[in-house]
Amino acid sequence: MKNPPALEQLIDSLRCLPGVGPKSAQRMAYYLLQRDRNGASALSAALETALEVVDHCKLCNTFSEQPICPLCAADNRDKNLLCVVEMPTDLLMLENTHAFMGMYFVLMGRLSPLDGIGPKEIHLDKLIKRAQDGLVNEVILATNYTVEGEATAHYISELLKTRGIKTSRIARGMPMGGEIEYVDSGTLAQAMMERRNV
Amino acid sequence: MKNPPALEQLIDSLRCLPGVGPKSAQRMAYYLLQRDRNGASALSAALETALEVVDHCKLCNTFSEQPICPLCAADNRDKNLLCVVEMPTDLLMLENTHAFMGMYFVLMGRLSPLDGIGPKEIHLDKLIKRAQDGLVNEVILATNYTVEGEATAHYISELLKTRGIKTSRIARGMPMGGEIEYVDSGTLAQAMMERRNV
Repeated sequence: MKNPPALEQLIDSLRCLPGVGPKSAQRMAYYLLQRDRNGASALSAALETALEVVDHCKLCNTFSEQPICPLCAADNRDKNLLCVVEMPTDLLMLENTHAFMGMYFVLMGRLSPLDGIGPKEIHLDKLIKRAQDGLVNEVILATNYTVEGEATAHYISELLKTRGIKTSRIARGMPMGGEIEYVDSGTLAQAMMERRNV
Repeated sequence: MKNPPALEQLIDSLRCLPGVGPKSAQRMAYYLLQRDRNGASALSAALETALEVVDHCKLCNTFSEQPICPLCAADNRDKNLLCVVEMPTDLLMLENTHAFMGMYFVLMGRLSPLDGIGPKEIHLDKLIKRAQDGLVNEVILATNYTVEGEATAHYISELLKTRGIKTSRIARGMPMGGEIEYVDSGTLAQAMMERRNV
């Protein structure tokens, strides 16, 4: 005794979503067919449209519907600064700060050998080429301060240094409004080591 | 600064899945577009096919690709017994026990006024009609032993009793291999109250 084939197929297909196992996939399939057929139909269409029109920007590698994304195409940005981030969300967060007016490069991931993500998967060749366009004179590494983000930043900085490109890393330290009593000791130790003159 | 429109649309559509909020939807969309375009395409197709071919069995209300599902159409089942379950998974679990050879009715849910699920949403009119087909002489209520499942069973039993249909409820008690020391007190109390002569 099994579910009908088309339903089994749907359950199976839902498992391609990250973090969705057999039980959740079944729950999702039942829910969609029972309570939200409009939503399911919209999802199917949205997937198809996105697969068709969303590609990567040729310059910064973020998701874009145009060959060159609006940000790279804008003429009011500082072409001398190139900020490297892991994901498009990081780019959006940095843009929201209005603290950076340079260009970006989005890795679409981080070095993670255990997940099979090496230098090729995060397009480091494309980044090296991008950083040598003759305009960029500083690459700012804004990968996460996680183990993998740190490793990625270190790897990239070594690659760039051998090519004589100036490289920097975003600062680490106390967060805004942070209280010394409650901040974790790793952050506090770094804030102490990387203290600056005032 | 935002994601491209087709990507925003996809993120929005993924939120129709149960248990998926804005952050997971974004993660899923990035993942699909970046690492599993084939999976996304298969998912889109599977959704479309399932919406097209999967409907409800006219007799038992479970998901089926035929108007009458294979189980209802089989001629080796006991048409005098009708077992009411909440979800198709429950039907599959009961079938796997090989302990029941009667017919089923799947509510596709349970009474849950807080979620807006009343008697109409779980097709009780269809159930009453089904139970009065002239063949059924006992309705077995196999809804879950949760608060909502219990309420549903009680509600249905009242409906059926007024129509003179014999109704029973699956037994409650110690699980197979259960040790009195470790079983919860609610279960133990019920097992004591519903003890039977040996």
